[in-house]
Amino acid sequence: MKLSIERAVLLKALAQAQSVVERRNTIPILANVLIEAEGATVAFRATDLDIEVLDRAPAMVERAGATTVSAVMLHEIVRKLPDGALVVLAADAAAGRLAITAGRSSFSLATLPREDFPVMASSEYATNFAAPAPVLRRLFDKAKFAISTEETRYYLNGVYMHVARGPEGTVLRCVATDGHRLAQIDAALPEGASAMPGVIVPRKTVGELRKLLEDDEAQIAVSVSETKVRFATPQVTLTSKVIDGTFPDYSRVIPQGNTRKLEVDAAEFAKAVDRVATVSSERSRAVKLTLEDDRLILSVNAPDSGAAEEELAVAYDADRLEIGFNAKYLLEIAGQVDRENAVFLFNGSGDPTLMREGNDMSATYVVMPMRV
Amino acid sequence: MKLSIERAVLLKALAQAQSVVERRNTIPILANVLIEAEGATVAFRATDLDIEVLDRAPAMVERAGATTVSAVMLHEIVRKLPDGALVVLAADAAAGRLAITAGRSSFSLATLPREDFPVMASSEYATNFAAPAPVLRRLFDKAKFAISTEETRYYLNGVYMHVARGPEGTVLRCVATDGHRLAQIDAALPEGASAMPGVIVPRKTVGELRKLLEDDEAQIAVSVSETKVRFATPQVTLTSKVIDGTFPDYSRVIPQGNTRKLEVDAAEFAKAVDRVATVSSERSRAVKLTLEDDRLILSVNAPDSGAAEEELAVAYDADRLEIGFNAKYLLEIAGQVDRENAVFLFNGSGDPTLMREGNDMSATYVVMPMRV
Repeated sequence: MKLSIERAVLLKALAQAQSVVERRNTIPILANVLIEAEGATVAFRATDLDIEVLDRAPAMVERAGATTVSAVMLHEIVRKLPDGALVVLAADAAAGRLAITAGRSSFSLATLPREDFPVMASSEYATNFAAPAPVLRRLFDKAKFAISTEETRYYLNGVYMHVARGPEGTVLRCVATDGHRLAQIDAALPEGASAMPGVIVPRKTVGELRKLLEDDEAQIAVSVSETKVRFATPQVTLTSKVIDGTFPDYSRVIPQGNTRKLEVDAAEFAKAVDRVATVSSERSRAVKLTLEDDRLILSVNAPDSGAAEEELAVAYDADRLEIGFNAKYLLEIAGQVDRENAVFLFNGSGDPTLMREGNDMSATYVVMPMRV
Repeated sequence: MKLSIERAVLLKALAQAQSVVERRNTIPILANVLIEAEGATVAFRATDLDIEVLDRAPAMVERAGATTVSAVMLHEIVRKLPDGALVVLAADAAAGRLAITAGRSSFSLATLPREDFPVMASSEYATNFAAPAPVLRRLFDKAKFAISTEETRYYLNGVYMHVARGPEGTVLRCVATDGHRLAQIDAALPEGASAMPGVIVPRKTVGELRKLLEDDEAQIAVSVSETKVRFATPQVTLTSKVIDGTFPDYSRVIPQGNTRKLEVDAAEFAKAVDRVATVSSERSRAVKLTLEDDRLILSVNAPDSGAAEEELAVAYDADRLEIGFNAKYLLEIAGQVDRENAVFLFNGSGDPTLMREGNDMSATYVVMPMRV
C-alpha cells in the first residue's frame, strides 16, 4: 500500500475514527485503525466491537493495499504536521511497518495484519430512510441529557428511537429517561421509516453520531434492523449495535391531567435556579418553588450553610403551590428551551411535572419532584 | 456590619481571596473569608496558614464591623449575580448569619466569629523595595516551570529569589530547579533590595502572586524577611511564609566551558520535538539530537510503537554530536524563548547543556541529557 493525501483531508478522516477507539484496550488490534487504499480512495475503519466507523477520503493511491496502525498515534502525528503538508503513507508488509513522510519529517509505526482486524458483519436492514442532519441533531440533542448512567438499568443507557403516534399523527420519536426525568422529542416521519423497529441507540453512539450532524445541508442515510443501526453521509458510515433490551412503556409516565400552568422566561428562570442552588448541599441540591398570583419564589434552605430566596415575575393564576425539585434537573430541562418561554404544567406537589417549549407540542419533558 | 458594594468590585476582591482557600479543609474557619468594613473600605482576608491574601475595595459602609463566611460560597453567589447589581452585605451577629441581597435575590450564609479567624502575625521586614509588575512577572514566569514537585526535596519546591552577582553586576535573581533542569533569571536590582536575604518562595505563592502582576503599569511593593515575603499593590497584599530550608549552590550546576553552539528557531524546534516525540513511549520520552554541519536531526526510536525522524536547518559548525533529552524538558525550555532564536551550548553527550535566548545573558537554562 502506498498513497499520498493532503494533511487536512487525512486529519478530518482520522478524527472520527480515533474517537471511537477506546483508550484502554486489552485487545491490541482494537487500538488500531484499518487503512484500505484502492482506486482513488482511502478508507479508515475503527471499532470498539460495538460501534464501527468508516471514513472515506480521496487520495492518490500509487499501490493498493491495506494495513492497520495505532489510531491515536497516527492521528497525533497528522495533527502535529504543518498545515498544507502532503502526507505519504507507505506500508512495508515484510518489515511490519507503515512509513509516514511529510516534508522533512518521517515516521515509522508498527503495524498489525489487516486480517486480524474485526470488521463488523454486514446486516440486512429492514428499514432505510433519509433525514436532514438538523432534524436528527434536534431529536438526539434534546433527548440525550435524560439518558441514564445506571449500568444495572442498561435498557435506559441510550435514546429510544422509534415510530409513535403524536398529537398530530405518526412521528419519528426519540425518548430518553433515567426515572427522574424524561425527554420525548418528535419529528415529522421521514418517507420509508414507518415500518422501522424501535431501537435503543447507546449513549456512546449518540456522541459519535453528533459529529456526523454538524453540516446543516447534509442528508443522513439511516438504516435500522432489530440489532443494528447505521447512519451514513457520503464520507462517513457509523454502524452500531443497539441495546438488547426493552425500553419501558414511557407513555404511562407522562402526566395527562396537569392543569396548573406556569409560564416563565427560560433563561431568567435558569439563572435564578442556579443562584439559589449555590447554598444547597452538594448531595440533595433541592430547590423549592412557591407559586401564587403571577409570582414564583425560588428558595433553598440548607441548615448547615445558609438559605437563599429569589422572586420572579411569571404568568401563573392557579391555586397556590409549593413543590421541590433537584436544581440540576431544573437547569437541564430549562436549558433545552431555545427561544420560547418555558411552560410548566403541575398537578400536586408529589406528582410528575410536565414542561413544554411555549406552544410547541413536539418536545415534552417530565421531571419528578422531590420532598423539600 | 452593613455595607453596599458594586457587584463587579466585590467579585474582583473575592476572586483572589477564595483562590487561596484550600478546597478540603479540616479546620472550618480556614474555609471562610474574613470581611472587615470600616470607613469607606471593605477588606477581605483569606488564608491557608501559609499564605494570607488581603483584598481591599471601596464600599458604602453603613455600619462598621466584621464577620467570616464561606469564601467559596460567597464568591459563587456574587459570580452568579447579574452584572451591574448593587450588593448589600449585612451581618446579624445574634443569629450568626450574613445576609446578602441584590435586587430580588436574597441569601443568608452561616458565619463564624471574626475572633476565630487566624490573622497572620505581622513581621519586621528587613528589606523593602518596589518593582514594576512586568519585571517580577518575567522573573517568576520564566523560572517556575523548573520548580520541583518532589516533596522530599522541599527546599526545591519553590523559586529562590535572591541578590546575586550577574555577568554585568549585582542583580535580582530568581532560580528554580528540580535536578533535571534549571532556570536562572536576572533583572536589574531595584533600589533598596541589595541587602535582601535570599528566600525560597513556595510554588503556591508563585501562583497566587501571578494574579497581582497582570497590570503592566502596576508597581509592586516587595517586603522580605528571613521567614516571610510580602507582595502588595494598593488593593491587594499577599503575605507568604517562605520555605524553611537552604537552596543548593546552583552555580556549580551551570556549565561554564560548553563550546559547541547550536542556534535554532525556537518555535520550529519545539514543533519538531513535539512531532517526533509522538511515537516515544509515555515513560521515557527520549529524543535524540544529532548535530553535524548546520543540520540537526531529531529522532526517536521506540521499539514497541515505531520510529520518527525530522531534519532542521540550523547554525552549527562544531564537531558531530549525538545527545539525548527528555522531550518534555526540551519543549519547556524552548517555550521560554520569546522572540529570539534558542542558543544551545553543548559539551559532551553526558554533560549538562546550557540554553540562552539569543544573546540575552539575563536568562540561563540548564537541562541534563539522558542516555538514548
